[in-house]
Amino acid sequence: MTTPTNNPAATGILTIVCPDRTGIVAAVSGFLAEHNGNIVDAQQHTDPLPNVLFMRIEFDPSAMDLPREEIGQALAPIGDRFAMRIGLRFTDEPCAMGIMVSREEHCMMDLLMRQRIGELAVRIPVIIGNHPHLAHLGEAFDVPFHVVPVTDANRSEAEATAIQILHDAGCHFVVLARYMQILSPLFLDAFPMAIINIHHGFLPAFAGARPYHQAAERGVKLIGATSHYATATLDDGPIIDQDVIRVSHRDSVEDLIRKGRDVERMVLARAVRAHAEDRVIVYGNRTVVFD
Amino acid sequence: MTTPTNNPAATGILTIVCPDRTGIVAAVSGFLAEHNGNIVDAQQHTDPLPNVLFMRIEFDPSAMDLPREEIGQALAPIGDRFAMRIGLRFTDEPCAMGIMVSREEHCMMDLLMRQRIGELAVRIPVIIGNHPHLAHLGEAFDVPFHVVPVTDANRSEAEATAIQILHDAGCHFVVLARYMQILSPLFLDAFPMAIINIHHGFLPAFAGARPYHQAAERGVKLIGATSHYATATLDDGPIIDQDVIRVSHRDSVEDLIRKGRDVERMVLARAVRAHAEDRVIVYGNRTVVFD
Amino acid sequence: MTTPTNNPAATGILTIVCPDRTGIVAAVSGFLAEHNGNIVDAQQHTDPLPNVLFMRIEFDPSAMDLPREEIGQALAPIGDRFAMRIGLRFTDEPCAMGIMVSREEHCMMDLLMRQRIGELAVRIPVIIGNHPHLAHLGEAFDVPFHVVPVTDANRSEAEATAIQILHDAGCHFVVLARYMQILSPLFLDAFPMAIINIHHGFLPAFAGARPYHQAAERGVKLIGATSHYATATLDDGPIIDQDVIRVSHRDSVEDLIRKGRDVERMVLARAVRAHAEDRVIVYGNRTVVFD
Amino acid sequence: MTTPTNNPAATGILTIVCPDRTGIVAAVSGFLAEHNGNIVDAQQHTDPLPNVLFMRIEFDPSAMDLPREEIGQALAPIGDRFAMRIGLRFTDEPCAMGIMVSREEHCMMDLLMRQRIGELAVRIPVIIGNHPHLAHLGEAFDVPFHVVPVTDANRSEAEATAIQILHDAGCHFVVLARYMQILSPLFLDAFPMAIINIHHGFLPAFAGARPYHQAAERGVKLIGATSHYATATLDDGPIIDQDVIRVSHRDSVEDLIRKGRDVERMVLARAVRAHAEDRVIVYGNRTVVFD
Repeated sequence: MTTPTNNPAATGILTIVCPDRTGIVAAVSGFLAEHNGNIVDAQQHTDPLPNVLFMRIEFDPSAMDLPREEIGQALAPIGDRFAMRIGLRFTDEPCAMGIMVSREEHCMMDLLMRQRIGELAVRIPVIIGNHPHLAHLGEAFDVPFHVVPVTDANRSEAEATAIQILHDAGCHFVVLARYMQILSPLFLDAFPMAIINIHHGFLPAFAGARPYHQAAERGVKLIGATSHYATATLDDGPIIDQDVIRVSHRDSVEDLIRKGRDVERMVLARAVRAHAEDRVIVYGNRTVVFD
Repeated sequence: MTTPTNNPAATGILTIVCPDRTGIVAAVSGFLAEHNGNIVDAQQHTDPLPNVLFMRIEFDPSAMDLPREEIGQALAPIGDRFAMRIGLRFTDEPCAMGIMVSREEHCMMDLLMRQRIGELAVRIPVIIGNHPHLAHLGEAFDVPFHVVPVTDANRSEAEATAIQILHDAGCHFVVLARYMQILSPLFLDAFPMAIINIHHGFLPAFAGARPYHQAAERGVKLIGATSHYATATLDDGPIIDQDVIRVSHRDSVEDLIRKGRDVERMVLARAVRAHAEDRVIVYGNRTVVFD
Repeated sequence: MTTPTNNPAATGILTIVCPDRTGIVAAVSGFLAEHNGNIVDAQQHTDPLPNVLFMRIEFDPSAMDLPREEIGQALAPIGDRFAMRIGLRFTDEPCAMGIMVSREEHCMMDLLMRQRIGELAVRIPVIIGNHPHLAHLGEAFDVPFHVVPVTDANRSEAEATAIQILHDAGCHFVVLARYMQILSPLFLDAFPMAIINIHHGFLPAFAGARPYHQAAERGVKLIGATSHYATATLDDGPIIDQDVIRVSHRDSVEDLIRKGRDVERMVLARAVRAHAEDRVIVYGNRTVVFD
Repeated sequence: MTTPTNNPAATGILTIVCPDRTGIVAAVSGFLAEHNGNIVDAQQHTDPLPNVLFMRIEFDPSAMDLPREEIGQALAPIGDRFAMRIGLRFTDEPCAMGIMVSREEHCMMDLLMRQRIGELAVRIPVIIGNHPHLAHLGEAFDVPFHVVPVTDANRSEAEATAIQILHDAGCHFVVLARYMQILSPLFLDAFPMAIINIHHGFLPAFAGARPYHQAAERGVKLIGATSHYATATLDDGPIIDQDVIRVSHRDSVEDLIRKGRDVERMVLARAVRAHAEDRVIVYGNRTVVFD
């Protein structure tokens, strides 16, 4: 997927994490200036407690005196000097996003539509459903839809099949668009910090099953949804985005489910967009999400 | 506090809870029409699961052929027929609200200012602080401020003193405006479903101590506050109102505390206003809050 | 579309507008009780300035001693006595909603998906596009899609064609789901107070063309969308719902357009839902929208 | 107000505006690194249309080899090279903020309380009221309160008096906390882009007088408030912040006024906070507001 020459329309995105000290911004921006790379957008954040610096720099590589393939190597000495974890990607090489889904269509439909009208900088090469229920929608959007049923008996094989399908399709990350199966550590390890889940509750409240029923039972006045990276502990991974909507005593559980759908797809879409544009950096169990 | 004649400016507020069946609205509205009481506002809600009807009717008593003291008695036969729990109050007899406070002023100040400019239909006859810290603010608003220090040793006596002060001042309900002491069942029983607390977290998430620290630790993207009736289980009583505000990785715990203050005072003020206007009906561990 | 016998699953919806005076609620609820119709939900509003009462009563007709066809007639004497404007509909007879659309799909897709998953109590018998651009989406949802191009030369004939199509399909109301043509008074008269438009600006700010460009120019910090009934004056009809989303200096006009799409489809869906459930009553240039 | 030595607790805030080109970030961050100034926070924005760069850098001057008085001069060659407009301030030298007020207290009270509890990095040396109405509140917060009545006859002298009072108190900027007089160009010129107004409407909708009455008349479903720099055209200056709150047909004009007060003080407080922390940069009729 590399491009031989620098595409004038594309920008490069550098993400950097390292211990904070004087001179980091100067070193990186000096490097770019020296090679004639103009900074289009830069954001940084310093977390004082562990004293860590997070940085996202978007730059225009079109006038640079380095081909984009050599930028990473040329940056390496600076990376070594400051003990940086560096990411580098170009916006004309969009990520491939796999979708996994069960019976409810609203999140999947939302992502497919947003991708089609250009809101999401991703390709969607494949959808996997554990039910055939939504297969016709894959068709309507021209995305291959694989049915991989999951039972208690076949769980391991089913996961292996799904991983194979996602890898074959070249997926860089996976979105669980209301996929109602719990993934094994094996599956999680196949896409480390690259599986985005939407939980239909305002975490850490209402983790686990039937969060809207829990919310109705407790009598809350707002319900929410949470998008997070899936980790080995259910509904406990780093949160990317959350939002809520007002409810009242007039709302039955069915109303909560209906209102919640709007929050779910908004929150999931924002999280996917942020991930696809390299705006999310995970540290510990938290995230930095640059605007 | 009763008024000998019907005040033309005031309205009466009827709140009714009873098992739902055909004819309830007809009976109550028929009673009012018969006595020439015009309905100014009416709201009802039926919860289908326990099949209970909740109703709030605001009516103009000025042209009624009954003095307001006799309305309750005249309604009793209808109440008996439908097994109603009935509340009746008139808006020219505002509730008396006691405030309890510790060191933080923002919620107390907010309530005092709103009452002064006419937003809250209450009188505030007394403030109790367990620290002398905010006594001068009581003075600035002309509200008697009693300092009742609380220690592990004197807790029972201190509570007895506070109850006495609140009773002497004629308080109908009590607001814990960031009062950082846990109340005993004895205290709670002295004002049943009439003690409103503001918790600085989005319940049921982050109950208990230091909710903003808990929120920072979990990496949430919204923080909240919850106003609820205090019950014997900490932070578990019926929720009256909640709200949230967006936060990000840029916010330190101090920023969460600062942003949270705005949510706390908004949510508390809305809950107090609803309670003071007889818009809140508790059932089980939940509330009906009419607009 | 009338049903010969009362359907046990359905409720009836009465909407009433009349000059306010004592005894209205008693008369209507007495009528229902007398005929054994249980009130499921009731909301009323009195606007003191013109002294008008608005009421929406949802009732269970299954045990009534009147067939539903005769309820209207039986109510007529009460209607005459209080000079009521009365509406009556049953929820098992969903409205038919026509959609008109131009090139942008997000609002149309949203309505089609919500209708399919049961969020909107309407049938969608027809879509009209003035471009063929979105015809394939009608197909994907099994809704007939008619292309009716509009030019300055053929505007009258095109409108006549569209009205004919909508009437032939039995449409009770029409949604302009980002339909970018101005309708003539003739068209508006064919569906009085039954054409719902979504304007991509927070009315009354930014009426007319290119509202997002206007918003960027003015440097606002929130952008919005407004759903309203179309009237002869552009973007000036009674507002049903509005909402906003936060923007910043970082957002280009393209970002405003993208963020605005989410607001547009939310606001339009809420307005359509309210209209389809007879929750909206127009008076003057304003609306009462019951919860 | 300058400090002879670098205060270890304080940070410096650099704000820079200049035509965008390669090397700007490198030059500034290189300068700071060279003098051992660690960057604590950095944000930048490039507006592509006029091709202008905006930058805000917060740095720790405590280990720098330059006294803070000399930093500006040392930066001058870089400023010249890139044609920069540079601002430099240190957080241990808080701005002095004057408040002007009429009869309504909620915005003034809010600012005074926030300042007292440490939310606003400002001193408040003086309040000017055109009525004596709120003088006692100045007293309660120990802030000198000057009554400067304004009539059509004495407008010029009154303004001259007010300017004199504000200058004598050393005010860097002025907040119109519901000050209901229109200021002359002369007054505006005395504090260029340093007079912050709160308008009780969602600009550009409902500019001018009685915005809540206008909103009620139009039947909007949200009302708002807008904080902006006062300029010669009424309610037309660069917007710093805005927000809205939901209203309904149930809300009378008095309810709009009450609900609006909450939005007004929130929006004004956020704008004042941003201004006081040098987060706002005006360009044309718009603002960049860094987080």
